[in-house]
Amino acid sequence: MSARSDIGIIGLAVMGQNLALNIEDKGFKVAAYNRSTEKTTNFIEKRAENKDIKACYSLEELTAELTSPRKIILMVKAGKPVDLVIESLLPFLDEGDIIIDGGNSHFQDTDRRFRELKEKGIHFLGTGISGGEYGALHGPSLMPGGEKIVYNQLEDIFTAIAARTDNGPCVAYLGPGSAGHYVKMVHNGIEYGVMALISEIYDIMRKVLDLKPAAMAEQFQSWNQSQNSFLLEITVEILKREDPETGRPLIDLILDTAKQKGTGKWSAEEALDLGWPVPTITAAVNSRSLSSFKAQREKINSRIGGWTKTDLNQQDFLNNMESALYLATIIAYSEGMTLLASASSKYDYDLKLAEVARVWQDGCIIRSDLLKAIREAYLTEDFFHLLASDQFKSDITGNLSALREVVTQIKALRLPIPALSSALDYLDMLRSKELPANLIQAQRDYFGAHTYQRRDKAGSFHTEWQDIHNI
Amino acid sequence: MSARSDIGIIGLAVMGQNLALNIEDKGFKVAAYNRSTEKTTNFIEKRAENKDIKACYSLEELTAELTSPRKIILMVKAGKPVDLVIESLLPFLDEGDIIIDGGNSHFQDTDRRFRELKEKGIHFLGTGISGGEYGALHGPSLMPGGEKIVYNQLEDIFTAIAARTDNGPCVAYLGPGSAGHYVKMVHNGIEYGVMALISEIYDIMRKVLDLKPAAMAEQFQSWNQSQNSFLLEITVEILKREDPETGRPLIDLILDTAKQKGTGKWSAEEALDLGWPVPTITAAVNSRSLSSFKAQREKINSRIGGWTKTDLNQQDFLNNMESALYLATIIAYSEGMTLLASASSKYDYDLKLAEVARVWQDGCIIRSDLLKAIREAYLTEDFFHLLASDQFKSDITGNLSALREVVTQIKALRLPIPALSSALDYLDMLRSKELPANLIQAQRDYFGAHTYQRRDKAGSFHTEWQDIHNI
Repeated sequence: MSARSDIGIIGLAVMGQNLALNIEDKGFKVAAYNRSTEKTTNFIEKRAENKDIKACYSLEELTAELTSPRKIILMVKAGKPVDLVIESLLPFLDEGDIIIDGGNSHFQDTDRRFRELKEKGIHFLGTGISGGEYGALHGPSLMPGGEKIVYNQLEDIFTAIAARTDNGPCVAYLGPGSAGHYVKMVHNGIEYGVMALISEIYDIMRKVLDLKPAAMAEQFQSWNQSQNSFLLEITVEILKREDPETGRPLIDLILDTAKQKGTGKWSAEEALDLGWPVPTITAAVNSRSLSSFKAQREKINSRIGGWTKTDLNQQDFLNNMESALYLATIIAYSEGMTLLASASSKYDYDLKLAEVARVWQDGCIIRSDLLKAIREAYLTEDFFHLLASDQFKSDITGNLSALREVVTQIKALRLPIPALSSALDYLDMLRSKELPANLIQAQRDYFGAHTYQRRDKAGSFHTEWQDIHNI
Repeated sequence: MSARSDIGIIGLAVMGQNLALNIEDKGFKVAAYNRSTEKTTNFIEKRAENKDIKACYSLEELTAELTSPRKIILMVKAGKPVDLVIESLLPFLDEGDIIIDGGNSHFQDTDRRFRELKEKGIHFLGTGISGGEYGALHGPSLMPGGEKIVYNQLEDIFTAIAARTDNGPCVAYLGPGSAGHYVKMVHNGIEYGVMALISEIYDIMRKVLDLKPAAMAEQFQSWNQSQNSFLLEITVEILKREDPETGRPLIDLILDTAKQKGTGKWSAEEALDLGWPVPTITAAVNSRSLSSFKAQREKINSRIGGWTKTDLNQQDFLNNMESALYLATIIAYSEGMTLLASASSKYDYDLKLAEVARVWQDGCIIRSDLLKAIREAYLTEDFFHLLASDQFKSDITGNLSALREVVTQIKALRLPIPALSSALDYLDMLRSKELPANLIQAQRDYFGAHTYQRRDKAGSFHTEWQDIHNI
């Protein structure tokens, strides 16, 4: 049997299957393997029937099937499974072969695997893939990181399968080592933030404005004319969906306990480590966690009471909400972009943030016209924080009072809106010339002799707040 | 030369010096060592003159000086230094000797050191010490963790030097392994939160109410009659302090760029890992980080403008602020206590939270009468989240509208108050029977097939939002 396949895929869950079909559809020969053979058989007999996809039932068969240098995409669960697959693959690989990890691996794992495989002469591309099942099949956003010369060997396949925009395919070499998975992590962090913002607006529509799901869908749809955001688009479809069994709006039947799968949390942890906060994204992660403690919430509610309905002038408020959601979404993106800017220098990724914005313009979950403006800003201006760009000056000044209106009025109505208020507080902090951190520094110097700086002269200063040393 | 000292101290920075003096003052013989001999000499000739403290100039000399089993407290910088000191100590130690790490070590390092030393037959007590320089000298709050039988050998010394309250000395065996350092980490997290809340109130007094530092000090002092909080107490003294050089209030001369040293950040990271958020504490960590980017803040301020002065009815608002600060402080403590409850089951610490509250009642930075009520709640009631206790029911219901008033009015006045608003949003979430997480789950199922639960029946459900599988 002679090697004839251009690329191999390990892991045939829906994402793996769709990616295989996408690659084959672009004229490449694919070899596919899954640990449980049923999945492979099932895939080959149904969705891959009559496609140029070779089913392989062992890693030996898979690797024998691939032309040299072998290119193998791992579409397995992040974490230990990735290490196990790599370990079992190694005996069948030759120097120069390329492993592509297409999962949501933690960037530190990616750096470790890159080092370990380099010692063995095996190339490794940590590649974020976004777009969900649909994107994988019809054109995902690809975020590859590793060695440029290795990326070049995948460029034709990546370019062929990626989503396309007027600005080119949604793929680019992002940087060395774990750059790709880091960018994907932040992508997901922004995704958490925007989802939380939309859900809080939904909560206001539901509890304060008394709108039915169909009416909410209309609102979001009209708002999305200008924003063209995937997350708004699917929100519209979700709110329109009827439960086939009961005929009721499906959204009303879904339990309000959300899960989180790591990448959002990792973004929040990284922000803490790098010291460039992502408050809206962090609020989104926290909201998911708190939602899962439904019993605790009900207990506290029964003790101290909860929200009670009040009415508002609907139309004015809906307009405010549109502007508020728009600005808060800009802020969530800016948190992520700033985290990337900070990570790029800490980890020497040398990220081109305009390219990141371009790669996110289509295919991925956070795709939105906003990314065109973000790309434009990074292409044409010089700034560290997106909120300091001219590009967004009028968006901020024009929508800030609306965001403030929504936050203050809804907080007055006793509804929790952690993501919206965090976005507003973040912006208000960033525009503050003076923060009260001088008191923090005085307190730290008082009890810990941590010293402080002065406004009127350079150096570190300590005040003997108490005369304790001579006691 | 025969061993005669009861305990050894390594590291003679101010904290180490003060702890040595405190122990000696209680009638124990102390042997003291510091890597740089000047520090030792200086200490012995000045502050330790005529005290029963033996200066040692090598670890060999120190260990020879100590009665068996040796008890050695490390007062060195957390991190690598602790490992280096332990490594250089080992050759001079015998089985059964006890090392006490009194620094702010990360609890995972403490677990590792405990294991490594146990293999060598050396006992290890990871012991959080709070109270700053003053507390170390006059009575700190001690948070020891490790093996109970080993703690028993230190109990007389710990009990003698700890701060005293009507409920006993501020020390207790907290739990196995890293329990002590974990509790200290959360103590510091709460400390971050309360400091941020006070600083935001200070910012309002300064910018909105136009109060001078002396007038602010009066306010905080009167508020502190009821709260008896150390952090409020030192805030009063700080605001009263005059700069000797300029005669101006010192607080006005201190630069508003705060630093953070890890423990607050670790608390926020742990909260993300355990899934029990600490939003007020996290906001405090983020505020310190953002304060340090003064140049960025000024740049954004110059682009989009910042806060502009507006007036408010002072007296009403001051009363509201007192209630708001009180409730937000309760919330910050509740975040920390809940994190401890969650950690206690994850790490098998079996923490007695009433004891933790008792140990914090005096000596430490977050000491306050609030801790008496918190202890009472844990002693007499059964709940998971402090905000679900009867103890605090009236404090919450009685002050919630004031906290809401302050947050909504100050947000309307365009001032950032991330800690205060995070505290309010956290409470509003915890009292929400219904959160909009059902939309999040629908979105996740839409693009990731993550499935959702239903309100009307058990199980996991997936909706074919798009008919993509048969494409």
